[in-house]
Amino acid sequence: MRKDEFQSFLKCTSEATYARIYEYFNNQRHISEEHLAIISRRYFIKPGKALRPALLTLCALLCGGNEENVRSAAAAVEMFHTWTLMHDDIIDHDEKRRGIYTAHVFASKIGKMNLALGKDDATAFGEALAMLGGDMLHGFALDMLMHTKTKPGLLIDIASEMDGTLNPELLSGEQLDIRLSYTPWEKVTTGMIMEMMRLKTGALLSFCAKAGAALGNEKPIRKNSEAQRLGEFAVCCGLAFQLQDDVLGIFGDEKEFGKPIGSDIREGKRTLIMLDALHTLPPEDKGKMLRLLGNKELSQQDLQFAADSVRKCGALARCQAMANSFVKDAQEILGQFPPSRHRELLRQWSDKMVGRAK
Amino acid sequence: MRKDEFQSFLKCTSEATYARIYEYFNNQRHISEEHLAIISRRYFIKPGKALRPALLTLCALLCGGNEENVRSAAAAVEMFHTWTLMHDDIIDHDEKRRGIYTAHVFASKIGKMNLALGKDDATAFGEALAMLGGDMLHGFALDMLMHTKTKPGLLIDIASEMDGTLNPELLSGEQLDIRLSYTPWEKVTTGMIMEMMRLKTGALLSFCAKAGAALGNEKPIRKNSEAQRLGEFAVCCGLAFQLQDDVLGIFGDEKEFGKPIGSDIREGKRTLIMLDALHTLPPEDKGKMLRLLGNKELSQQDLQFAADSVRKCGALARCQAMANSFVKDAQEILGQFPPSRHRELLRQWSDKMVGRAK
Repeated sequence: MRKDEFQSFLKCTSEATYARIYEYFNNQRHISEEHLAIISRRYFIKPGKALRPALLTLCALLCGGNEENVRSAAAAVEMFHTWTLMHDDIIDHDEKRRGIYTAHVFASKIGKMNLALGKDDATAFGEALAMLGGDMLHGFALDMLMHTKTKPGLLIDIASEMDGTLNPELLSGEQLDIRLSYTPWEKVTTGMIMEMMRLKTGALLSFCAKAGAALGNEKPIRKNSEAQRLGEFAVCCGLAFQLQDDVLGIFGDEKEFGKPIGSDIREGKRTLIMLDALHTLPPEDKGKMLRLLGNKELSQQDLQFAADSVRKCGALARCQAMANSFVKDAQEILGQFPPSRHRELLRQWSDKMVGRAK
Repeated sequence: MRKDEFQSFLKCTSEATYARIYEYFNNQRHISEEHLAIISRRYFIKPGKALRPALLTLCALLCGGNEENVRSAAAAVEMFHTWTLMHDDIIDHDEKRRGIYTAHVFASKIGKMNLALGKDDATAFGEALAMLGGDMLHGFALDMLMHTKTKPGLLIDIASEMDGTLNPELLSGEQLDIRLSYTPWEKVTTGMIMEMMRLKTGALLSFCAKAGAALGNEKPIRKNSEAQRLGEFAVCCGLAFQLQDDVLGIFGDEKEFGKPIGSDIREGKRTLIMLDALHTLPPEDKGKMLRLLGNKELSQQDLQFAADSVRKCGALARCQAMANSFVKDAQEILGQFPPSRHRELLRQWSDKMVGRAK
C-alpha cells in the first residue's frame, strides 16, 4: 500500500467527520444563547486530524462494518474528545489550543467586549461559558452516537460503555493529573504517570477501537474478542501518543504544535520524560531543573537549558524508544488479525502516534 | 384520596430512587480517584425530595406503564438534575446547598487538608474537582437511563431528547441567567426572566414528564400527544416552582431552605418578584433597593428592608398569585386526562410546586 493512500484515508475521514459535525450544529435548534453557540463551535472552526474518528472507522472496517454506517459514531467520538479538551483547558489555564485562543480565554474576551466586564468578571464569565459549552458538547456526543445506523440494542451497549466506563476512567485520569501536579516531584512515580496516561489518553482511544469493532461485527463490547484485542491495541497506541505529546511539550515547534513552547516546563507538568531526566541528571542540573519546573516566568535561555538537559541525559532518546516499543506492542496485537487493506491502514495509523509534530 | 397517600408515594419514590442511585455507585468500578468518588456522591448523602423522579414515574403510570420498569429512568433524571446543580453552584459561587457545603467548597477543603494547598490553589482545585464530578454524573445519568427496561428503540429516542434537546435548552437557560446577572436592572425585561425560567427549570421537568409518558405508552416522544400534553403541564409547574423558589430566596428560612437567607438579594439575582418590586416601589425605596442588590456585605437590617419592601409593594402577593395561576393552568391540562388515582397524585404533585418551604 502506498503511503499516500493512508494520508488520503485520513483526509477523507476528517472531512466527512467534520461535515457531519457541521451538519449536526446546523440542525441543532435548541441553543438559544448566541455566545454559547459560538463557544461550543470554537474547536471545530477548522477540521482537526480526526485521529479518533479514523481509529473507530478503521476498526469497524476491519471487523466487517462499512464506513457510511459508522459516520455518526465517528463524529461522536470527536465531539466527546472536544468537550474534555474544553474542560481540561479551563483547569490547566491554557491560553492556546491548535494555534487559537482556548474556549474560556475567547469567552472571556466576549465578556470584555460585549458585556463590558472588568478583568476578574470576564475571567469568571469565560470559565463559566466554556464549562457550559463543554457540557453541551458532552450531550451532543451522546446524541450523535444515538444517530448511528446499527441495531438499537448494540447502540445502548456502546452508549453505556461511553458514559459508564470511558467517562469515569477519563475523568479519573484528569483528576490524577491534577493531584500529581500538587505532588512533589520526589513522590511522583513512573507507575502513577503511566496510570494517568492510560486513563487520560488510553481510555478514549480504547473506546474508539472497541466501539468501532462492535459496530463492525455487531456484537456487544464485553463479549467481543475482536473489540477487546483492538481495545488493547489502542491503549498501547495511546501511551505512545502521550509520550510523543510530552516530547513535543518540550521540543515542539509552537506554530506546528499549536501550544506555546515550553508550556509543560512552565506548568511543571508531571511527565515520564521529565521524571526520567530528574532521575538521571547530575545533582546540580537536577537542582536547577527543579527550580525551573512550574515557574511561569522562564526566559528563552531557561527553556533551552531544560530542553538541552533532557536531551543530553538521554531521557529524550529513552522516551522515544519507549514510545516506539508501545507502537511495536500495538502492531503485534494487530498481527493477530488476518492481513487486509484495513489492517495495513491501522498499522499506518499506529505509526502516526510517534511520527508527528502536532 | 387522602393527603397522606400522596406523601407516602413521594417518600417511597425518593427511597426507591436513592436506593437505585446508591446501587449504581456501589457497582461502578471505574472511578479510581478517591476524591472524585467522594465529590460525585456529595449531593446524594441524604435522599432528596425526588420531585423529578416522582413526576417521571407518575406520568409513566398515567400512560399505562409500571413503576418498577421506569425506576432507572427516574434515578437518571435525579442524577441529571444533580450534575447541573454541581456546575451551577461553581458558577454562582454558592457556599451551601441543602444545608451542607456545596461540592466545590467541600472539594477545596479536601485540597487544603489532604494536599496542604494554599487558599487560591485550594479554590482552583475545588472548582476543578467539582467540574469533573459534575461531568461524571452527567455520564452516569445517561448510563442509568440506558438501564431502563423498555424497547431499545424507544430508549434511544429518549436519550436523544435528553442530550440533544433538554441539555442545550437547560444550558442556554443557565447562560441566559449569567448574561442577565451582568445586565443592568433597567434593561431586564419580564420576558427575559420568563424565558430563563422556562429553559432553566421548565425544560428538565418537561423532559421528565415526556420521558415518563413515552415509557408508559411506548410511543416516541415527538409523535406522542400524551407526552406533549404532560410536557406542557410540567412547564407550567416549572414556572410555578421557580417563582416559589424566588420567594424563598427572599423570605425562606435558612434551616428549612438550605441556603443562606437573603442570598438572592446579595447576589442581585434577576428574579421576576424583584423586577416587579423595582417597577412598583416609590423612587426612594427603589434607589435604596438597587444599592442593596448585588452587595455581598448586607446587614440583617438591609435584608429585612428588602423583604419588607417586596411584601409592602404587593410584589410578593402578585408573585404568589402568578405561581398559583401557573399551577391552575397545569391542572387544566391534567383535566384533559380521564380521572384516575395517578391523575390525582399528579395534581397533588403540582400543588407541591407552591406549597413548600424548601
